[in-house]
Amino acid sequence: MNGNRFGRLFQVTTYGESHGPSMGCTVSGCPAGLELSEDDIQRELDRRKPGQSQITTSRGEPDAVSIESGIQDGYTTGTPIGLTIENKDARSGKYEPFITAPRPSHGDFTYSAKFGTRNWGGGGRSSARETVNWVAAGAIAKTLLSREGIEIAAHVCQIGDVEASEVSFDEIRERVDETDVRCADLDAAERMQELVEEYQREGDSIGGGIYFEARGVPVGLGAPRFDSLSARLGQAMMAVPAATAFEFGLGREAREYAGTERNDEWEFSEDGAPAPTENDHGGIQGGISSGEPIYGEVTLHAPTSIPAEQQTVDWETGEVIEDAQVIGRHDPVLPPRGVPVVEAMLALTLADFMLLSGRITPDRVDGRPGEYDTDYHPENPRNE
Amino acid sequence: MNGNRFGRLFQVTTYGESHGPSMGCTVSGCPAGLELSEDDIQRELDRRKPGQSQITTSRGEPDAVSIESGIQDGYTTGTPIGLTIENKDARSGKYEPFITAPRPSHGDFTYSAKFGTRNWGGGGRSSARETVNWVAAGAIAKTLLSREGIEIAAHVCQIGDVEASEVSFDEIRERVDETDVRCADLDAAERMQELVEEYQREGDSIGGGIYFEARGVPVGLGAPRFDSLSARLGQAMMAVPAATAFEFGLGREAREYAGTERNDEWEFSEDGAPAPTENDHGGIQGGISSGEPIYGEVTLHAPTSIPAEQQTVDWETGEVIEDAQVIGRHDPVLPPRGVPVVEAMLALTLADFMLLSGRITPDRVDGRPGEYDTDYHPENPRNE
Amino acid sequence: MNGNRFGRLFQVTTYGESHGPSMGCTVSGCPAGLELSEDDIQRELDRRKPGQSQITTSRGEPDAVSIESGIQDGYTTGTPIGLTIENKDARSGKYEPFITAPRPSHGDFTYSAKFGTRNWGGGGRSSARETVNWVAAGAIAKTLLSREGIEIAAHVCQIGDVEASEVSFDEIRERVDETDVRCADLDAAERMQELVEEYQREGDSIGGGIYFEARGVPVGLGAPRFDSLSARLGQAMMAVPAATAFEFGLGREAREYAGTERNDEWEFSEDGAPAPTENDHGGIQGGISSGEPIYGEVTLHAPTSIPAEQQTVDWETGEVIEDAQVIGRHDPVLPPRGVPVVEAMLALTLADFMLLSGRITPDRVDGRPGEYDTDYHPENPRNE
Amino acid sequence: MNGNRFGRLFQVTTYGESHGPSMGCTVSGCPAGLELSEDDIQRELDRRKPGQSQITTSRGEPDAVSIESGIQDGYTTGTPIGLTIENKDARSGKYEPFITAPRPSHGDFTYSAKFGTRNWGGGGRSSARETVNWVAAGAIAKTLLSREGIEIAAHVCQIGDVEASEVSFDEIRERVDETDVRCADLDAAERMQELVEEYQREGDSIGGGIYFEARGVPVGLGAPRFDSLSARLGQAMMAVPAATAFEFGLGREAREYAGTERNDEWEFSEDGAPAPTENDHGGIQGGISSGEPIYGEVTLHAPTSIPAEQQTVDWETGEVIEDAQVIGRHDPVLPPRGVPVVEAMLALTLADFMLLSGRITPDRVDGRPGEYDTDYHPENPRNE
Repeated sequence: MNGNRFGRLFQVTTYGESHGPSMGCTVSGCPAGLELSEDDIQRELDRRKPGQSQITTSRGEPDAVSIESGIQDGYTTGTPIGLTIENKDARSGKYEPFITAPRPSHGDFTYSAKFGTRNWGGGGRSSARETVNWVAAGAIAKTLLSREGIEIAAHVCQIGDVEASEVSFDEIRERVDETDVRCADLDAAERMQELVEEYQREGDSIGGGIYFEARGVPVGLGAPRFDSLSARLGQAMMAVPAATAFEFGLGREAREYAGTERNDEWEFSEDGAPAPTENDHGGIQGGISSGEPIYGEVTLHAPTSIPAEQQTVDWETGEVIEDAQVIGRHDPVLPPRGVPVVEAMLALTLADFMLLSGRITPDRVDGRPGEYDTDYHPENPRNE
Repeated sequence: MNGNRFGRLFQVTTYGESHGPSMGCTVSGCPAGLELSEDDIQRELDRRKPGQSQITTSRGEPDAVSIESGIQDGYTTGTPIGLTIENKDARSGKYEPFITAPRPSHGDFTYSAKFGTRNWGGGGRSSARETVNWVAAGAIAKTLLSREGIEIAAHVCQIGDVEASEVSFDEIRERVDETDVRCADLDAAERMQELVEEYQREGDSIGGGIYFEARGVPVGLGAPRFDSLSARLGQAMMAVPAATAFEFGLGREAREYAGTERNDEWEFSEDGAPAPTENDHGGIQGGISSGEPIYGEVTLHAPTSIPAEQQTVDWETGEVIEDAQVIGRHDPVLPPRGVPVVEAMLALTLADFMLLSGRITPDRVDGRPGEYDTDYHPENPRNE
Repeated sequence: MNGNRFGRLFQVTTYGESHGPSMGCTVSGCPAGLELSEDDIQRELDRRKPGQSQITTSRGEPDAVSIESGIQDGYTTGTPIGLTIENKDARSGKYEPFITAPRPSHGDFTYSAKFGTRNWGGGGRSSARETVNWVAAGAIAKTLLSREGIEIAAHVCQIGDVEASEVSFDEIRERVDETDVRCADLDAAERMQELVEEYQREGDSIGGGIYFEARGVPVGLGAPRFDSLSARLGQAMMAVPAATAFEFGLGREAREYAGTERNDEWEFSEDGAPAPTENDHGGIQGGISSGEPIYGEVTLHAPTSIPAEQQTVDWETGEVIEDAQVIGRHDPVLPPRGVPVVEAMLALTLADFMLLSGRITPDRVDGRPGEYDTDYHPENPRNE
Repeated sequence: MNGNRFGRLFQVTTYGESHGPSMGCTVSGCPAGLELSEDDIQRELDRRKPGQSQITTSRGEPDAVSIESGIQDGYTTGTPIGLTIENKDARSGKYEPFITAPRPSHGDFTYSAKFGTRNWGGGGRSSARETVNWVAAGAIAKTLLSREGIEIAAHVCQIGDVEASEVSFDEIRERVDETDVRCADLDAAERMQELVEEYQREGDSIGGGIYFEARGVPVGLGAPRFDSLSARLGQAMMAVPAATAFEFGLGREAREYAGTERNDEWEFSEDGAPAPTENDHGGIQGGISSGEPIYGEVTLHAPTSIPAEQQTVDWETGEVIEDAQVIGRHDPVLPPRGVPVVEAMLALTLADFMLLSGRITPDRVDGRPGEYDTDYHPENPRNE
């Protein structure tokens, strides 16, 4: 069990190591008839790509995706979509000093202890490079959800002690990629940028938080109790590298709210359906989506690989190394590049539940299976 | 897909509704040869039982567990363990007013919208009564883990604005059941009790938080990336009724920590193995257990069913009801009875990973399968 | 991993041992709004019940099912359906001689070796009594499929060297329960009955085969490659106690057919759709249902528990027992009581694929989820 | 749900179409420390490769495997193993006539009906080319099993009416690849070859059967009831393209055996353990391996793509085509190339159960996880 699979009906399976030949993921369960191109995926990969700015690693990866199966004439065929992304700038040599001396708070020690072997290529499987697969798969999920009117957004809501003010969904979508820190509150973004650069100069790193939101999610997603929407979002978001907290709705603050304060009363909407007067519940009630926007936050701790001197030990030589420095190509802060990753995990979770709830039919995006005609894509050149 | 299954190798499947004839769960994957009695399970159920104190619902359930299969002469047989718990004090009539008028922020509306039907028996499947199954299954997991030296504890660390001081693992285990609020900081417990009674008097309710900790967990549990220990704990804890936040280690606070602050340096332990100097990482590194205590917190929002007047709407009559009151047998605060539930989910998650990692062998607690002798339980009366 | 779960979306989980207090199964994934009563389930259980005739075990079990959850006012609620069946005539004493001496070709040895413990109650979990759960769950699947126009039938097509002539689907459905051997060719049935009685008189037993057929299955069920309809039927049928062969379409005989002989050519059906001229393919092409009847056979070997003297060994005493006799309440032939079991496994497999293909929507049998009205069951007394 | 995943702990996920850029599979759950090279995989792929002889398709594929992850310095790392195999000789043009006219008994119609789209590249996902992935993954499983003393063999036991005589396990392993038809009875092989050539000359094809056997399988594999070893083998083998029957032990013939004939009595083996006097049970008792050789047969129907004239219909033009000929590069008989495929599915199933039973530990092939040393591979160049 390698934990390289996500999703029950919209399924993602990944492979790849930081400095291996390629990263890859197979997406299955995407219905036939979805218009999809490499560009749709590449656009998202470019947002996660290293080397975008001064505050991201300088590793030079084009992260060009190649579709190996599952698409024909620009539409999904309903069969597994194989994606590969070559590692072009892999250099394992850089990390050699740390083969038997674990980096502080990194996964080096635990991976080595678990598998009895040490991947000396930049963390191997434990590297956040894996998330390139998630973003690729998430791009397909987003395309699928978008057809159903579900839109997703995320931005950096906090770095260190700099918090963003509340920003609207539309503002997030418009501005998220405008700044290097990916915060849609542009004032806060500037202060965040300064803060990160300060830590970076000192060979240090800093933590932060990402706010996410999904709109257009219909009522009824989630399979309580163990597969409630909140439980599966919890799994999805806590899988994000460096995540230490997941919250939705009022999150941790809900501790201090009384029932009368937090409860959202019911009124009738314009079309006569019950609608909550507010959305303190974060779009999920009893583990099932309520039709209101789903929102929450993920906390990512500071990157552990830092140039500052720290103590480690070499378990082979028995030596204590007091001034170990991790000199590689590391980000000084994770949320800016984590934004597309969080969006991807949100999209993957929702796409899965859309299929599980029958809102999206499993075999074809249009209609039910079992009709023998194959020409429902008018653009299909073979069917003219 | 009803989301009534938890675990990959240590598997729990549940059924039951608040006011149906019985609750039940089937535990499979528990190896043979584990000494286990109804008492081991009953002890935990009694901690979760309603009607324990003034601040819990007055529903009168003995919650007596019956083992239907999987145990012979006091030991598990390796085959599925069927457990049932009768509902003795079911009265569905109480809730009738709310059949087509959803309680504010309750699962009434979302369940009805999802299934197109309304369970009028006290919430039916959405009721927290379901957690009686989790606690029963969790008791088996705890018994199994205890053999391996893994111990689990939880207590209420916050209610409203009253926070507990830091308490040691041993103090939690000793004192958690001493007070009605289940807080091991006895001073804070007193203030919490007062606070809850105050809200109760006003027909209101209040939120809170539960701290959990596991000791003795070996290095190597967790299957990154999607099934990392933190991801699966995230799922487990966010499935707890009313959970709005899951944190481990520094949790949400990690946002404000620099890498140099949060990173735990390495030293050699007395027995010569690498050991972190601190445990800011919360016992999980790179998604895998580090051997240090695993700790974190879960936030539970205020109970939604309150006597205070709130507005709702009746979707059948079209009526707006401004002064709806939920007059039932409801808890004014959830964490006190949530403590055994959180412990259960922690135990179930860890037992599953102990099996997945091969630390606990799947067929027998002692040794490997394939030996033809059957007499390795000396107490076995048939084998004298 | 106890292998007590079947199905991906239409999920069954079972527990129970031959001589424990009860058998039980939990069915989840059945959509809301299905009319279902205990009678619908009991009818099928009565067909599998022991003590029906001279050629079945004399164990006296009423096999009365009790619905513990998931049904309200005669309709499914969409949440897990808990079923229990009490064991009324459990007597474990009967089998004591064989605790450490395995019955020839029975599961005694393998279960004991696997779990290091011996269930001395009539085989415990390895008993075919478990199939009472399958038939109960299968009855729900049948009810669900019937709404969609899918009908299922099976009958005994061979016992020993007595083969039934070809019988039509309708004849099978009409006559299957008319004879004790459950063969719809009534002449063959008579000869089968005589044959079985002959073996029974000699303290021996005999093997046989079951023919199954499903009609009304739409085109498009099956998820090739590993989850093709034939692969999952293969799993389902090979799980039936004593199954040694699974065949569909021409089955084993297909070895001797040329492509030109076996291939079914295409013509247009009356409504203008492509239709095969014959059905040598058995209703499955490329692992997916073709819309034609699905048919095949399952072979069940002779019951292993027989009064005739056979040699075994006692692994505790080291004794060789040359004249061991299994004096219990055992069937001399399995297919007659296996018919409802095979039907159940066929129904469970098809119901699962109907959900997986989106033909049956997962939350509600009628319409899509997300509408807030709950009154679509006109019979619902609360909604008058 | 695309059915592109096999295995619970030893997991395979595949993608790829007959005429797409590449085939690929990801194997996860293989423990760390297994010596494994591309050669180990290539050797098996070469056995399945097209163009080996006159009686296989002339498609010219080198089927060269590339390992993308999961191996370091010649040993598995415990993390997912990504494999890709380029399609070098893809030419989709050949099949164009059949885009809207389904080939008789092929998956064309059912795939098109299911997904509402037609893959015009030689069957796309429905092509047996997919099995290149299975053989690649199976090679890893075989390597893993071999360490545990489990060996696997298969050969063609029947083509048309030509049956092989009984051949020993060792003979099969020695001779299976000696003849083009892959039958270890060399006399029968000659007659099979002649028969196939005869059908081939007539533009026809013919069915056949494969015998498989596994030796060294320990007692205790299988998770009855639904995941019994026979049930999972049933799934695995019925997933093989063109499979219409699966049998183990006496298979279909068991119908005619009495209990006294089929039952295998017990004696003591030389080392004092209970051992069956014969192996009519086929190595599986009560769904669990008995320690005896596991053997059985799979039937593969005649290839459906044949040059002989057959009738089909064009669902777009409404035309009935009486003389459709499938002129491509197709095998006239499947079992010869199916042998490595059946071996692969047997190996994958057994590897999965070896992990599920704890016989193979999940994280490392040697020893338990949690030790911090990483130098247990003496050959590891980094650990000198």
